[in-house]
Formats: sequence, C-alpha cells, structure tokens
Amino acid sequence: MPRVSLPAGHSIGRQMLRPLLNPSALLALFALGAAGGLIGDEGHVASGTTRYISHALPFIWKSQLWFPLLVGGATCAIAELRLALAPPRAEGGFGEGAAAVAAIVGLYALTALLRHDPLGPATSLCYALAALTAWQFADGRAAVACGVVAAIIGPATEIVLVAAGVSEYAEGVDGLFGVAPWLPALYFAFGVVAARLGELFAARAVNG
Amino acid sequence: MPRVSLPAGHSIGRQMLRPLLNPSALLALFALGAAGGLIGDEGHVASGTTRYISHALPFIWKSQLWFPLLVGGATCAIAELRLALAPPRAEGGFGEGAAAVAAIVGLYALTALLRHDPLGPATSLCYALAALTAWQFADGRAAVACGVVAAIIGPATEIVLVAAGVSEYAEGVDGLFGVAPWLPALYFAFGVVAARLGELFAARAVNG
Amino acid sequence: MPRVSLPAGHSIGRQMLRPLLNPSALLALFALGAAGGLIGDEGHVASGTTRYISHALPFIWKSQLWFPLLVGGATCAIAELRLALAPPRAEGGFGEGAAAVAAIVGLYALTALLRHDPLGPATSLCYALAALTAWQFADGRAAVACGVVAAIIGPATEIVLVAAGVSEYAEGVDGLFGVAPWLPALYFAFGVVAARLGELFAARAVNG
Repeated sequence: MPRVSLPAGHSIGRQMLRPLLNPSALLALFALGAAGGLIGDEGHVASGTTRYISHALPFIWKSQLWFPLLVGGATCAIAELRLALAPPRAEGGFGEGAAAVAAIVGLYALTALLRHDPLGPATSLCYALAALTAWQFADGRAAVACGVVAAIIGPATEIVLVAAGVSEYAEGVDGLFGVAPWLPALYFAFGVVAARLGELFAARAVNG
Repeated sequence: MPRVSLPAGHSIGRQMLRPLLNPSALLALFALGAAGGLIGDEGHVASGTTRYISHALPFIWKSQLWFPLLVGGATCAIAELRLALAPPRAEGGFGEGAAAVAAIVGLYALTALLRHDPLGPATSLCYALAALTAWQFADGRAAVACGVVAAIIGPATEIVLVAAGVSEYAEGVDGLFGVAPWLPALYFAFGVVAARLGELFAARAVNG
Repeated sequence: MPRVSLPAGHSIGRQMLRPLLNPSALLALFALGAAGGLIGDEGHVASGTTRYISHALPFIWKSQLWFPLLVGGATCAIAELRLALAPPRAEGGFGEGAAAVAAIVGLYALTALLRHDPLGPATSLCYALAALTAWQFADGRAAVACGVVAAIIGPATEIVLVAAGVSEYAEGVDGLFGVAPWLPALYFAFGVVAARLGELFAARAVNG
C-alpha cells in the first residue's frame, strides 16, 4: 500500500506540540464534525433517545452549544492521533471521504431510530455495523486504535455528563452507566471515520 | 480503468436518435426497473407511505399501471444517458449487477419501513445510504450526473402527480412539496444503479 | 486470484471421511456459530419473533440447548462443504473474517427488529441485504452453492421443528409453512459467511 512520507521529525512527541494537519484542514474537520454532531443529535433529541437537562448555554438547533464544539474538537483530535500513530495511505479521495462521513451519519441516525426496539438486537446491529465501517475504512492498527480511544473517551465523557445532570438517556436505553449500550459502537465508528478523514486531508496536502 | 471503446460516432447528439443499448438489453432494463418499482411500491402502499387516489388505470399488484411503466422507462433512459455521457467500464459482471439491484431494492424497502419513525434521522439515514450506494457503484461524474438527474426529475414528477391529485404521500412524510424528504435520495441511488446497469449491459454486448 | 493448493487426494468423496479443516479450526468455527446463534436467537425471542414451546432441554441464555449446537455444527458443515467444492482463496485475513461475522450478526439482529413491520418491505430488505452480503464475501459458485444449501436445509429443518411443536414463529411472520418468509435470506447469508470463514481458516492453516 503506498504511503505518504511525512517529515523526518514526525513523532507522537512532536505531534503534541505542532499539529500535523494545516489550519484549513483542521477547520474543515472541525466543521464536518460539528455539523455531523448537530444532525445526529437532532435525531437523538427528536426520537427522545436523549434529553438536555441543563440549558445553561444557548441552543444550536436542538443541541446545547457545547455539543457541536466537543464533536468538532474530537474529530480534529482523532485525525491528529491517527497521523501521529502511522503515516497516512496515499490513495483515496473525495468520494471515500464522503462515504466515510455517510457511514457515521447513517449509523448515528440509526441509533435514534432504534429508540423503541428491543435492546439486544438493536445493540447487536450497531456493533455489527461499526465493525463493517471499520473494515471498510480502517487501515489496520492505527485506525482501530483511534476507534478504541474514541469508544472509551466518548462514552466515559457522556457518563460523566449524565452523572452531573447535564443530559440524560431515556429509560430503556440508559443501561451502560446511564448511557446507551450501543454508544461505544457509535464512537468506535466515529473514531475510525475521523481517522480516515485525517488521512485523506493529510494525503491531499502532500499530493496537491 | 479499462474502458469499452464505443463506435466513433458516439455522441450525445446521436444518442438521442439511436439508442446505445441493443433491444434485448433495453427490454431487460425495462423489466428490471418495472419489477423493482412494483416491489418497492408494494412496500410504500402496504406501509401507508403512499396512496393512489386516481384508479383510472388498472392495477398491477398494488400499483396503477402507469407506475411500473414509468420506472421501467426511466431505467432505460438513465442507462442510455450514462452511456451518452462517458464510455462504460469494461469490468464488472452479473454479481455486481445483482448487488446494484439489491442496493436500490433494499433502500426502497427501507423507506417504507421508516413510515412512522422520526423524520429527521429517517431522512439522514436515507441520504447516507444513497451516498454509500453511489460510492459503491458510481464511477465518477457520469454516474453521479445520472443520479442527480434522477434526483431532480423523479421527485419533480411525483410532486406534479400529487398536486394533480393522482396519488399522495401520508401526513408526516409529505414535507417536500407533498412528497417525502427522502425521495431525492431514493431517486439519486436509483439513478446511480440504473447507470451501472447500463454500463454492465453495454460491456456485455461489446465483450461477448 | 491466488488459490491455496490442497493435498492431491482432495475430493468430495474423501472430504466426507476426513475433515479438510484441522480440529482447532473446527472448534473455533463451532464456537463462532454457537455464539452467533445465541446472540441472534436472543433477539428473536426478545422481540417475540420466535418462541420455544418445548422446554425439554436446558436453556442456554434464551435458547434451548439444541439450538446453538445445531448452528455451531452447521457452521462447520458449511465450511467443510465450501472447501470440498473448490480451493479456498489465499487472500483475506482476520479483518475480513470479523466483517463477515458482523454481516450475519447484523442481518440476524435486523430480522428481529422487523417483527412488527409490514412483511413485504421487511422481506425485500432481508433478501437485498443477503444478496449484498454474498456479493461482498462469496467468491463465485462454490460460496453461492453453500448459501443455497443453507437456504434450503435451514428453513426446512425449522419448518419440521415448528410442525413438530418444538418452537413457533409469531403470527404475521409465519407465512412460509410456519416460518418467516425472510428466513431463507438469513440462512443464505449464513451459508455464504460460513463458507468464507472456512476459506479463511483453511488459508491460515496452509499459510502459517
């Protein structure tokens, strides 16, 4: 598999200090993540899957302001993590990026549609689709690691927010310490997709 | 990507006068489109998504006669448009054609199953799956153009039919000038699939 | 496509007498099939799609003991059938195996979620997804034959069990001689996935 060669000093240590993606790529990733988060969150709120208890900040569409900011920031962070872990693949283009975004938007929407379904098969379906998303867009350990990091930090953050009374999951979909059992699957797929977007933006910066 | 070379006179102008596909390919495309339309329409009628108001023509299964004729004809027209826009890819075979048909039959069925779901995530899911269908079966601009043409003409035709009192979408899924908000996504995927089928039939005629 | 060369005596006749997969591969396939069966069956029982009438044997989670044993055994049998029909592909690895398992676990879960949906589009969706699963994981006639064998023997076995009063499908999803109309699609996809797993285990035994 052809890989883009990065500058010699490329390492996790340096990456912490200096982003591997240029400002316009980071801005695009932030905007994509924030927009995707808003669309997905609208579905969760409309279906009654989640509810904002604290209205401390202004609402953007159906979401409290902090939500799109967190998702946008997480998208950038995961993309950077992916590039810090391994060089990006050189192949792939706009079409694959659009498909990766579609995969996570679709899975996010699906979790909202499963609100009143039996939890067992609903959860199985989400993990199965997350695995298929990873198979389609991940290039091995680096991308899977990004998915795992997202699958741990994302739900952990939401568990804290629920415990703090900021938001809540509806009864019946709150079985994982207050959040939905399918939430790690959704974040895992998100991590894999953000990793792929990081690769694609990096390859584009190098190639053209 | 290997491409089938078409006769020298190949152009949009000539294509208007003489079909690029032979009669048996056109007949097969018409039959596939009509059959797929009937199966999908059964789902829309059974789920209460759509209803025929005018019973002027005889019914074929659950559809007024004009419906399968329109879908079959549109399948041929989009396939011809694809071949007029760019040469077809030479690779691909029966399996990919079956998969392309399965993708659109599945998405059509899914729209029926989303009848009583929150419209936001239901719509997101349909557009996401349409994008994934395009990523899987489209070969760039020509196929995407076919999808866009279908996504404009198809819903526009249905909007006119609804306005004329011929048929209707149920309350709650009629928010796009009387038709469903996910309808352009369904037609876009249909256009991409019909384009791919046009390619496959053309390649088969040249190769074998 | 590179293929693994099997021992010279390879034939359907010998395969009947001596398994083509080694004991650890067969054990893994049995465990995968039994576990997948248990997860899927939990969904069918929880959604009310199926019900065990006879409680003659102990329950494993939500299933009567015979169910995971049958699914595990069928997974091994289909994998052996695949290898008896044609040499396995050499390519593919853990990721594709996980994806194939995810595809069938996801489709199994989906059939449970369709319990109360209109049967027409629910059935169309299942057959469409089974076809897409085959397109993704089957390598032509041998794998498709495995799917067809599973699609015949599996539902036939369940029809007998329903007729014998061992278990039942709920009203509305029992239209195919007492079992669900989408059941052959589910078994077809199962057969294709078991065939792919057989290939992957065989290639691994030869390669490493």
